[in-house]
Amino acid sequence: MNQPLRLGIAGLGTVGAGVVKIIQSKSELLRLRTGRDIEIVAVSARSAGKDRGVDLSAYRWHGDPISLAQSDDIDVFVELVGGDEGPAKDATEAALKSGKDVVTANKAMLAHHGQPLAELAEGNGLTIRYEAAVAGGIPIIKSLTEGLAGNKIKRVMGVMNGTCNYILTRMQSAGLSYDEVFAEADALGYLEADPNLDVGGIDAGHKLAILSAIAYGVQVDFDAVKLEGIGQISIDDINHAADMGYRIKLLGVSQMTENGLEQRMTPCLVPETSPLGQLEGGTNMVVVEGDEVGQIVLRGAGAGEGPTASAVMSDVLDLARGIRIPTFGQPAETLGTATPAQCDTPAPYYLRMELLDRPGSLAAVAAALGQREVSIHRMRQYDHEGDNAPVLIVTHATSQSALATALADLKSHDAVIGTPVALRIEQI
Amino acid sequence: MNQPLRLGIAGLGTVGAGVVKIIQSKSELLRLRTGRDIEIVAVSARSAGKDRGVDLSAYRWHGDPISLAQSDDIDVFVELVGGDEGPAKDATEAALKSGKDVVTANKAMLAHHGQPLAELAEGNGLTIRYEAAVAGGIPIIKSLTEGLAGNKIKRVMGVMNGTCNYILTRMQSAGLSYDEVFAEADALGYLEADPNLDVGGIDAGHKLAILSAIAYGVQVDFDAVKLEGIGQISIDDINHAADMGYRIKLLGVSQMTENGLEQRMTPCLVPETSPLGQLEGGTNMVVVEGDEVGQIVLRGAGAGEGPTASAVMSDVLDLARGIRIPTFGQPAETLGTATPAQCDTPAPYYLRMELLDRPGSLAAVAAALGQREVSIHRMRQYDHEGDNAPVLIVTHATSQSALATALADLKSHDAVIGTPVALRIEQI
Repeated sequence: MNQPLRLGIAGLGTVGAGVVKIIQSKSELLRLRTGRDIEIVAVSARSAGKDRGVDLSAYRWHGDPISLAQSDDIDVFVELVGGDEGPAKDATEAALKSGKDVVTANKAMLAHHGQPLAELAEGNGLTIRYEAAVAGGIPIIKSLTEGLAGNKIKRVMGVMNGTCNYILTRMQSAGLSYDEVFAEADALGYLEADPNLDVGGIDAGHKLAILSAIAYGVQVDFDAVKLEGIGQISIDDINHAADMGYRIKLLGVSQMTENGLEQRMTPCLVPETSPLGQLEGGTNMVVVEGDEVGQIVLRGAGAGEGPTASAVMSDVLDLARGIRIPTFGQPAETLGTATPAQCDTPAPYYLRMELLDRPGSLAAVAAALGQREVSIHRMRQYDHEGDNAPVLIVTHATSQSALATALADLKSHDAVIGTPVALRIEQI
Repeated sequence: MNQPLRLGIAGLGTVGAGVVKIIQSKSELLRLRTGRDIEIVAVSARSAGKDRGVDLSAYRWHGDPISLAQSDDIDVFVELVGGDEGPAKDATEAALKSGKDVVTANKAMLAHHGQPLAELAEGNGLTIRYEAAVAGGIPIIKSLTEGLAGNKIKRVMGVMNGTCNYILTRMQSAGLSYDEVFAEADALGYLEADPNLDVGGIDAGHKLAILSAIAYGVQVDFDAVKLEGIGQISIDDINHAADMGYRIKLLGVSQMTENGLEQRMTPCLVPETSPLGQLEGGTNMVVVEGDEVGQIVLRGAGAGEGPTASAVMSDVLDLARGIRIPTFGQPAETLGTATPAQCDTPAPYYLRMELLDRPGSLAAVAAALGQREVSIHRMRQYDHEGDNAPVLIVTHATSQSALATALADLKSHDAVIGTPVALRIEQI
């Protein structure tokens, strides 16, 4: 039998307690699968006295995660503190500087500081593992870095924030407004302390930036992710999109193009019959397209104690088995810097606008679009009371820039009331 | 830079040629990801002269895969010959006896001889990798052995034969009979030389047996898989099931119960709104349920040059990176033997029968079922011409044994014409 793998766990919230429970309750199974004992040596959290539903009495307690990270008697530092700066990052750096591998669930830290942390790790012959940082229990990091390593990746897409997907699908199923469902989600405790992390797309954007780095062998660049939250999505658009056979999702898309790397986390339409379109509630889904494998879809719980602890354990067990690969799948020093590209890969768009109900309005809109080479695939004008006629248009594939010019023309057109809504239809 | 990883590839069909192409065309990418060159040293196939669309001139040619497997200048033997016995198995054994790790896509060999081969490998400090053996490009072996290693697995399900799923979904979409679609699939070259491997569920059963071994830490036992093909599925049942909100799939289910291990590869109904129900055409899907992670769904191409070669490469690249775990996820000598259990986990069933159209027929059926404790959840009697009334029943969850007794009663009942059809509804 090999030496035990000795862990120091910092952060004993839901996920940390879940990890402790797995290690305590499955010791025999984990030993069979790794050939070693997985041993918790020490833990750290803000409040020592709190009842976390697990017996922590056998573990040394550190008030400070940095002192835990530096302990000589641990092999792996498990960082479950959270936050892109502060104690999480300080302790992670301390662990790497003192010769410990790191397992973390911290997407914000990796999205902001992934490159220097990976360089620090690899400079010391160590690794950072972070399966739990992206899409909870779904083994997407392992699939991308290892399972699909024979592929040139062409596109990565995903619904990676369960709260946003819950809100959007609940709006549709209950016919409620964004504000009403937001209030519900808040009452249910589904939202982060800063809800903009969820509904503003920031949390999901962190995850996308990490996947991009692996997929394309480039330095993680969260600042280049185009972020747009779901706060502007109206129940009208959800219903109209459904009428046209689509669902609205907060969809992350990362794609290497001739012009550079497109990364966006924005509300998009997807066909209702696609796996992404059929994703209801808080579930996550990641879609990877490789040049050899075609399209692989992974679906599962994106959050929660069990799923997230399962992902943390997969990293711990890999380390116990001696599986150690570079943080982003290839040595950090070989990761290039991608040119951030405008999200200008042509796509069809969904447009909704209100027209003055008078002869020639629709013709004027069609002409304005045509002048900018935006061609109409489908159009619907709805029954209406009053002067304004709601019109839906699905365009043929067009560039974002052509569309933006056309929309500016339309906005200033006297047949168009207010500002047209435009949402990209992601082709999948 | 580490030493190159030197491969000997036996079998140069579609998949073998695909692997050669990837290694030739992506050498730089693979070197970045593994830190080593991946080098093909020698190859073997039945016909030396055949044009396979790749330049093989740089590789030593072996007429005999065994001599290739024994070559001193290879590190890994890539077995793509196929077949559960014969050259594939002989060469695999020869490779393991002479110190080479093995990468294979051979589900039949592993389903029949997985245990002795794993023991042979591990006795020599080697490993057998087989990502391509199950569900093509989907990284299910890696997900199960590594990504979900912190879980006790509760159930594994899947659609793992694309040809069967193609036939069943094509029957429904085109309204054709099994025989008609079978002939189409044959003409399209979708069927194995022995079509029973596909439509009899054998190929998919091999895959399920392998997944069971990993999931439950037991010796692979293909003979214990209850196999039932799709040849008896009528377009009537497909249409009636759709009426009731279900799809018919050749579904593999593996589940550890109090009575032992249930393994079945049989036509089942699944809800049309579930990921399995929505799976169209030749795509594969594997669903894994873990006690921590909940339900994880993986979907992708189950066959074809690119997807299968992608899976083979994932194993090759793992070995290049030094990732080596026991064949079935824990040492072969620790794998238990599972008691094969009757597939008696209670489930609802779909029943279709023809009744004599006379007063009391339906009441008699309901009474016969009730007497065996089979309770009716939904029942539909259809419009009909002639004397026989088609009746559909969805039962509440019942054991297979209770149902079998009830069906025997019904079959001999004079109100029932012919033999009732019964299909399990898998709850997902």
